[in-house]
Amino acid sequence: MALIVQKYGGTSVADLDRIRNVAQRVVNTYDQGNDVVVILSAMAGVTDNLIKLAQQVSTTPDRRELDVLLATGEQTTAALLAMTLRAMQYPSESILGHQAQVLTDCDFGNARIIDIGAERIRRLVSERKIVVVAGFQGSDADGNITTLGRGGSDTSAVAIAASVKADTCEIYTDVDGIYTTDPNICPKARKMERISYDEMLEMASLGAKVLQIRSVEFAKKYNVPVHVRSSFSEEEGTMVVNEDASMEKLVVSGVTCDKNQARITLKKVPDQPGIAAKVFEPVAAAGIVVDMIIQNMRSGGQTDLTFTVPMTDFERAMAIEREVAREIGAEDVLGDPEIAKVSVIGVGMKNHSGVASLMFTALADENINIRLISTSEIRISCVVTEKYAELAVRVLHTAFGLDKNC
Amino acid sequence: MALIVQKYGGTSVADLDRIRNVAQRVVNTYDQGNDVVVILSAMAGVTDNLIKLAQQVSTTPDRRELDVLLATGEQTTAALLAMTLRAMQYPSESILGHQAQVLTDCDFGNARIIDIGAERIRRLVSERKIVVVAGFQGSDADGNITTLGRGGSDTSAVAIAASVKADTCEIYTDVDGIYTTDPNICPKARKMERISYDEMLEMASLGAKVLQIRSVEFAKKYNVPVHVRSSFSEEEGTMVVNEDASMEKLVVSGVTCDKNQARITLKKVPDQPGIAAKVFEPVAAAGIVVDMIIQNMRSGGQTDLTFTVPMTDFERAMAIEREVAREIGAEDVLGDPEIAKVSVIGVGMKNHSGVASLMFTALADENINIRLISTSEIRISCVVTEKYAELAVRVLHTAFGLDKNC
Repeated sequence: MALIVQKYGGTSVADLDRIRNVAQRVVNTYDQGNDVVVILSAMAGVTDNLIKLAQQVSTTPDRRELDVLLATGEQTTAALLAMTLRAMQYPSESILGHQAQVLTDCDFGNARIIDIGAERIRRLVSERKIVVVAGFQGSDADGNITTLGRGGSDTSAVAIAASVKADTCEIYTDVDGIYTTDPNICPKARKMERISYDEMLEMASLGAKVLQIRSVEFAKKYNVPVHVRSSFSEEEGTMVVNEDASMEKLVVSGVTCDKNQARITLKKVPDQPGIAAKVFEPVAAAGIVVDMIIQNMRSGGQTDLTFTVPMTDFERAMAIEREVAREIGAEDVLGDPEIAKVSVIGVGMKNHSGVASLMFTALADENINIRLISTSEIRISCVVTEKYAELAVRVLHTAFGLDKNC
Repeated sequence: MALIVQKYGGTSVADLDRIRNVAQRVVNTYDQGNDVVVILSAMAGVTDNLIKLAQQVSTTPDRRELDVLLATGEQTTAALLAMTLRAMQYPSESILGHQAQVLTDCDFGNARIIDIGAERIRRLVSERKIVVVAGFQGSDADGNITTLGRGGSDTSAVAIAASVKADTCEIYTDVDGIYTTDPNICPKARKMERISYDEMLEMASLGAKVLQIRSVEFAKKYNVPVHVRSSFSEEEGTMVVNEDASMEKLVVSGVTCDKNQARITLKKVPDQPGIAAKVFEPVAAAGIVVDMIIQNMRSGGQTDLTFTVPMTDFERAMAIEREVAREIGAEDVLGDPEIAKVSVIGVGMKNHSGVASLMFTALADENINIRLISTSEIRISCVVTEKYAELAVRVLHTAFGLDKNC
């Protein structure tokens, strides 16, 4: 007898047959005596098609109106699932973002949840109804429809789970859990039984596209246990939970690889106070997110400044920095888009020394040159030449004892 | 400098090109200094396709959920038009039924408007924004999405025009106005410049499918001038307005024909108090609308009772009346589905005698036998054999001087 929030992604509700499959899963949970709140994405492809339609109207469609348009996708699947459940003689009701009182800021297309009233959901649940909520959408203080950005239904689900104090939030997707690394790169990747919120945050931000990162932040903040699993099998997936004692036994939990980065180096920058600000202020003003920053001392009052930016912003960032270099009198600007950031992640490394040296040794043994290094409390990242990325992942996966036994 | 409400039907917004055409019309009106509120239907065919989708879920899809599904159609066109106007650098905002505070009862699929707050529309208009409202939809007191039934966007438009005190409500459709009769039946049919609300109500209920009848009731109640015109030409259409002196000069304004009727006669019914109730109560209980009722006296305490029902309910009504006839001891039940109701309509006939006799004479001159007659203050209807219906329409159109001069 639990209160369970289930979220189904676009591939799980791609057509009426799959919606029937979802309905069957929902009633199985309900028939065990649980209360169920379902959060849905739009049918796979629908959101992209609506965006294409809007782009035929304008290359930069009005963001407020785009949200009104996009919100129809989740409205459609929510109505169809509730209708399917009613046809199966189960009490069910669909509700939209504004009806669920999902209050957001007014950053159309990428709105953030401020608060969820959820009185209506609680009332319906107390009537033993299966509540079907259109994910991805909310409304701002002025009642305008907003959407939460790509993957926003994950955040809808976790935020609603938090507000109704659900026992668990199940995220149904087309993969069966979180892996120690990308199985396409490393065949020995293992599905994890458990992962901590902090590890998942590092994994999500480094390219494991299973959960929207904001949903994990929500889950951590409100301590919502999240169960990532497949809607196409009955197998248990991966629990994303608070860090516990057992996790720390494993030094490293996962290895990630992010090829969507490019490196920029300003050579022979005058080493004066305020120079870093001059280098990075114009990039930030252009909305470009700088990830790693490394400064190497040279002799003679000069320094080399190296940093990474997303691939999509590489050309723009290069143009800006050429201008900056001219102004501050740096010698040259070098760019390299063919890099990859390989990281090892684990809450266990807080209590273990030697993780960095094991990582560097493992890479050195394969003659993989490390170009940049950055660290957080539970992560060590190395930038390597792109062509060595897959090899680096496999080497580290083995070195940290993550390979499955088979 | 007026406040103008414009409603565009499904064929007028059937694709992005047509939506651009609508946007151009809207800005032409706006650029003349007028404030404009636009009400839209779904793209032609979309509502039918959504209904088909729902029927794949269930032959009787849940009505509440069906409304949630159907409401996406108008949400889509409203967003696309507002987006198009923004792309043309005009200030515009789309709003949905619940945002426009279109409060309805909770008769899902056929809801009636109780009240329209319209504060939001008024505020946006005062900011010189072009307001684009999703037609056909509202929400009930509990915040559930409702739809207003087939043609409901007309009613949305007129009700909103009433609530914002618009100077005129323009209904853009795929015909260029209201005709004296169906041009497909009578090539000499003329487009009317003006028609009164009452005449339009009689026309609408008798099969001229240009305006949803409830929209005309609203227009009459709140005295909203309605202009029915084509979205594909610049030509003036037909004004639906309060009756005025000039209208009464014309005795008859239009001729209509309704083939969607069937006749049922109970022969030799005992002429006793309470018999009529016994005949009609079971039909009403079955939700069948009885239109004309005629009772002929016979000698010997017996009477013949004749009435008409919609074609779609004919077989059901026959079965019910055969049962009734057995109970009350009537001799026989006769049915005739091959009839048509031909009517002449005009506010002028209130002040002119002789309309009925002119009608009967014109039909008699062509040897068209009249089977039933019924009248209202501004209408005379005759039931004739179906095969004579078109001939009857043309004869009456000529007899009452409605033929165009060409």
